[in-house]
Amino acid sequence: MSTLLIIGGAAGPALLGRFVELAGGPAARIVVIATASSDPAAAEAEHLAAFREQGAHHVEALRLDDRTAANDPGVEPVLRAATGIFFTGGDQERITRVIGGTATDSVLQTLVASGDVVLAGTSAGAAMMSGTMIVEGDGPGVSRTSVRTGPGLEFLPGVVIDQHFCERGRINRLLSAVALYPHELGLGIDEDTAILTDGDAFEVLGSGAVTVVDAGRATDISVPATGPITLSGCRLHVLPAGRAFHLTGREPSA
Amino acid sequence: MSTLLIIGGAAGPALLGRFVELAGGPAARIVVIATASSDPAAAEAEHLAAFREQGAHHVEALRLDDRTAANDPGVEPVLRAATGIFFTGGDQERITRVIGGTATDSVLQTLVASGDVVLAGTSAGAAMMSGTMIVEGDGPGVSRTSVRTGPGLEFLPGVVIDQHFCERGRINRLLSAVALYPHELGLGIDEDTAILTDGDAFEVLGSGAVTVVDAGRATDISVPATGPITLSGCRLHVLPAGRAFHLTGREPSA
Repeated sequence: MSTLLIIGGAAGPALLGRFVELAGGPAARIVVIATASSDPAAAEAEHLAAFREQGAHHVEALRLDDRTAANDPGVEPVLRAATGIFFTGGDQERITRVIGGTATDSVLQTLVASGDVVLAGTSAGAAMMSGTMIVEGDGPGVSRTSVRTGPGLEFLPGVVIDQHFCERGRINRLLSAVALYPHELGLGIDEDTAILTDGDAFEVLGSGAVTVVDAGRATDISVPATGPITLSGCRLHVLPAGRAFHLTGREPSA
Repeated sequence: MSTLLIIGGAAGPALLGRFVELAGGPAARIVVIATASSDPAAAEAEHLAAFREQGAHHVEALRLDDRTAANDPGVEPVLRAATGIFFTGGDQERITRVIGGTATDSVLQTLVASGDVVLAGTSAGAAMMSGTMIVEGDGPGVSRTSVRTGPGLEFLPGVVIDQHFCERGRINRLLSAVALYPHELGLGIDEDTAILTDGDAFEVLGSGAVTVVDAGRATDISVPATGPITLSGCRLHVLPAGRAFHLTGREPSA
């Protein structure tokens, strides 16, 4: 069963330590992929140091700057040897443009499906996990023009993930996304907060909360070309650490 | 039946014109109360000019700077002669502190209950309309400390009203308020947007939307002293102009 740790940005030591622990603790073999970052060397150095501080002895960076690198046959053994793979923040569209559909993507999908690795991502590395990925959008209000989406790498299908959620006041763009695509469950993850998936459910970890917006049972959705959206009967759940949620059931669980 | 026009701030000409029209058009007798404002003379001048521009011939300001003024017997005939009374923005606690429980308050309650006047308010003048009034709170996240409330003047009981709603990203403080007081329906009103009440229902007017958050059917509410609130099974409706909502039924209506 796949294990995904999806972090809303600005992860503190407790969450980073939990990742190391899930990947095997001192025996973990961790690979950091900073493709999203505009300064990958700095992002790699920062994360390698943080994971070493949490007790991981084997940490390395895998530099994937372009599709040639992501299709290089040398990538597969590096990923297959890993027990934990971590995507840093930056621009989520860099991840999909550089890695989408490459040999790296295929190996990651295989490893995640087999449950042989913990795949983690923060911020942009969280956004790209979803079936539908929010690319940008910070206009006020709930409207068609308040959000731009594209396909994510679909490690967690059926959801649209937003990050830095309460810190950047992003509920309107997430509501806009689920009004446009009510089959996608909206997951807004605060900073220093994560969801840890276990098959079809997730548990919330960290200091903030995860806001679930579910337009599945909405009774009236109207999306004009411009101007405000109508969205009646949306469900909303605010779930802090320790709470769990069943994805296909669309309900909080014990 | 009481008619309340509750505006989320920054009302444009269309909303101000609608108020004049509801109050009787050219025959309207409009009274502006700028008690919330730190510069009442400026707020009065601005609103008197705006209502004259919308075709009202009889417009005047009623200056209520302190409780002595609000208890002056001279207030009652001024209010009784009005067909429309408008509360400006500023600090909603100034309205409750200066007017709450005074002769002015009693006359206003009587006039509103009789349906003989249209009572309008924008921003702070909107906040004070509710049973539970949001006083302040802009902390991130949904928590006990994200919002401070007090009793409003209760022209519209059973609700908690927030204003400048999407522009200032206030959903977290409104969710915090309804998690604390799930019997109160949360109404988040955008700028240049209003609700017009007609007995137990309201219609949305203006260029933005009204976000209704309803914790009445929440299945799990947990409010720790500090840290994030759990709120499962909240309902949410985003309603732009032309949509209506039934308050005690807690459902959008045709």
